[in-house]
Amino acid sequence: MSLILTFLGKGGSGRTTIAIAAAKKLASQGKRVLLAAEDTGPALGLLLGTSLSSEVQQIATSLDAVQLKASALLERNWEEVKKLEAQYLRTPVIKDVYGQELVVLPGMDKALELNALREYDASGKYDVIVYDGSGDVTTLRTLGMPESLSWYSRRFGKLITESDLVKTVSPFLQPLISTVLNVSWTGDNFSQPTGQVNNILEQGKAALADPKRLAAYLVTTDDPIAIATATYLWGSAQQVGLNVGGVLFNQTATAPTIEEFSPLTVSAIPNTSAGDWQPLIDALPDFTQVTQVPKPIEVDVANRQVKLFLPGFDKKQVKLTQSGPEVTVEAGDQRRNIFLPPGLSGRTVSGAKFQQGYLIISF
Amino acid sequence: MSLILTFLGKGGSGRTTIAIAAAKKLASQGKRVLLAAEDTGPALGLLLGTSLSSEVQQIATSLDAVQLKASALLERNWEEVKKLEAQYLRTPVIKDVYGQELVVLPGMDKALELNALREYDASGKYDVIVYDGSGDVTTLRTLGMPESLSWYSRRFGKLITESDLVKTVSPFLQPLISTVLNVSWTGDNFSQPTGQVNNILEQGKAALADPKRLAAYLVTTDDPIAIATATYLWGSAQQVGLNVGGVLFNQTATAPTIEEFSPLTVSAIPNTSAGDWQPLIDALPDFTQVTQVPKPIEVDVANRQVKLFLPGFDKKQVKLTQSGPEVTVEAGDQRRNIFLPPGLSGRTVSGAKFQQGYLIISF
Repeated sequence: MSLILTFLGKGGSGRTTIAIAAAKKLASQGKRVLLAAEDTGPALGLLLGTSLSSEVQQIATSLDAVQLKASALLERNWEEVKKLEAQYLRTPVIKDVYGQELVVLPGMDKALELNALREYDASGKYDVIVYDGSGDVTTLRTLGMPESLSWYSRRFGKLITESDLVKTVSPFLQPLISTVLNVSWTGDNFSQPTGQVNNILEQGKAALADPKRLAAYLVTTDDPIAIATATYLWGSAQQVGLNVGGVLFNQTATAPTIEEFSPLTVSAIPNTSAGDWQPLIDALPDFTQVTQVPKPIEVDVANRQVKLFLPGFDKKQVKLTQSGPEVTVEAGDQRRNIFLPPGLSGRTVSGAKFQQGYLIISF
Repeated sequence: MSLILTFLGKGGSGRTTIAIAAAKKLASQGKRVLLAAEDTGPALGLLLGTSLSSEVQQIATSLDAVQLKASALLERNWEEVKKLEAQYLRTPVIKDVYGQELVVLPGMDKALELNALREYDASGKYDVIVYDGSGDVTTLRTLGMPESLSWYSRRFGKLITESDLVKTVSPFLQPLISTVLNVSWTGDNFSQPTGQVNNILEQGKAALADPKRLAAYLVTTDDPIAIATATYLWGSAQQVGLNVGGVLFNQTATAPTIEEFSPLTVSAIPNTSAGDWQPLIDALPDFTQVTQVPKPIEVDVANRQVKLFLPGFDKKQVKLTQSGPEVTVEAGDQRRNIFLPPGLSGRTVSGAKFQQGYLIISF
């Protein structure tokens, strides 16, 4: 299992440069590092001074790099899908469609990226994977997919398995779906979270919740818009349950004290000329030290409270709705569905207030 | 019908600032303008000096603005989906799922954005829609969706309609799908493009192909990485058939001559202090003048040639594969499937060469 590190912030604030410096720092500490870039454009290659491709290549001692090219990933995964289809469908329909002709649709790229990260993580080859994503809400939605997909299967699973439509097709699809998700497709499995780390989604959720497995850092410059964007992404990250470990204040000799980022540690990253990595490497925090960061969610059944850490938002930017055993919290452009535990399930929300960056919901 | 304008370039090169200036310029020319922003973070509001939301609001004479908030769009569209389901399925399964609890998955956001643009376009309220998207390959994939989805339905449609699985479910789904896509779900419709502008996808493809309906401009600064990224996006835009009208060279008094951007017109956009819009507005080109831009694709049946404009790529970055009546061209992280017309269909690719930014494929 690896630590997956990623960087959030406004475009142009230096995320990719910092991702490279972080990868170099960790490799110099003896960690086995993979630098995995979402953008298949020329930027990363120019910054590194070497051309990259969709095949993993070693670029320095203990340091590999790869561009997560969606079309190549789609081609690779398609062959697996075809094998499964041939195995489970009596008359396979997609066997004549070739991986190299498939066009990437929005969303496919992100699912494929997340799956690639999962595979690199599971390979056991890397201590740290530095993921240079788009660093915005899309990155958050991508990392939040295990949680979102679990919600969809929980919410729709029972409805769908009871429908005429699915009763009709299930003899065709059941073995296929069971294999892909490693779950049995019954109403019970979807009616409530099982709490077992027994499938790919539960494993993804477990990784997301653990700051030793997945952590994000905010990157900003002194541009007020970059600071406001970093704050917004910090709050939005909590909505998918992603731990944010600190702030990297780029292109500055000394980091200013910025009230909005409390209680995060702010590191000053100096402005250097292209290719001069050492000052950046020296200025970065030790990513292997697990920092004490506020937990995105704390449930206190005894006091009938759910505490959500939601920095950067105020009460009028947050919307609460309740439906059955779930409470939906909307903040920014992210929704989070909280499945209430037995002690709170069935109770109605009686109040909500903001206190020191926390949204406290009472029942 | 509106002109939809968008800007491509590296993050931090000033795309959003230029989008605002472009919207202001067009409004001052008496056009009815909508500024539609993908990013729901605080950046656009701070630059405009006003807070925005997912509801369209007037921010100046002839100028409206909206944030394309995916969760709000999903909620709105969900009610439509439920109505269709209730109308066509004997036992609706999703009627108890509420729009305000739905979580946005990667890809949904883009499909919803494109649909929102389509609706604003069709509303007849705007002469120009300035779309401030992520300005990268994701924006290209989003705008290319009508083409990509058409390909999927063409390629998979016949296979799927002939499968046991679909023969079983089609009594349930056929009316629903026919309504949504406004096509009848028969093998014939998918076996080859009909050439008729008779459905939502064909309309989208027609808009994409017409520089009076949809045009992109490249934004760059003098940073070599920003220039390389703009060039890469220019080539990638051709792969989805998006016309690129020119280059906006930001933060400069006089635009340098850059060989890579030939034959595009390069406009120098000066560096101004925040809120000083007039110098930017004055420096921008006239977006309503249709520029002579190279067509992304030209098919010459007589000479048995297909010419693809692919600036920024060379022969070794391009991969060609042929399968049935289609040729797949892969460049960057984009694939384009070209359906060969009758005179070329059935012929094998006999050669391919690069000439002045064009990939010329001979049959």
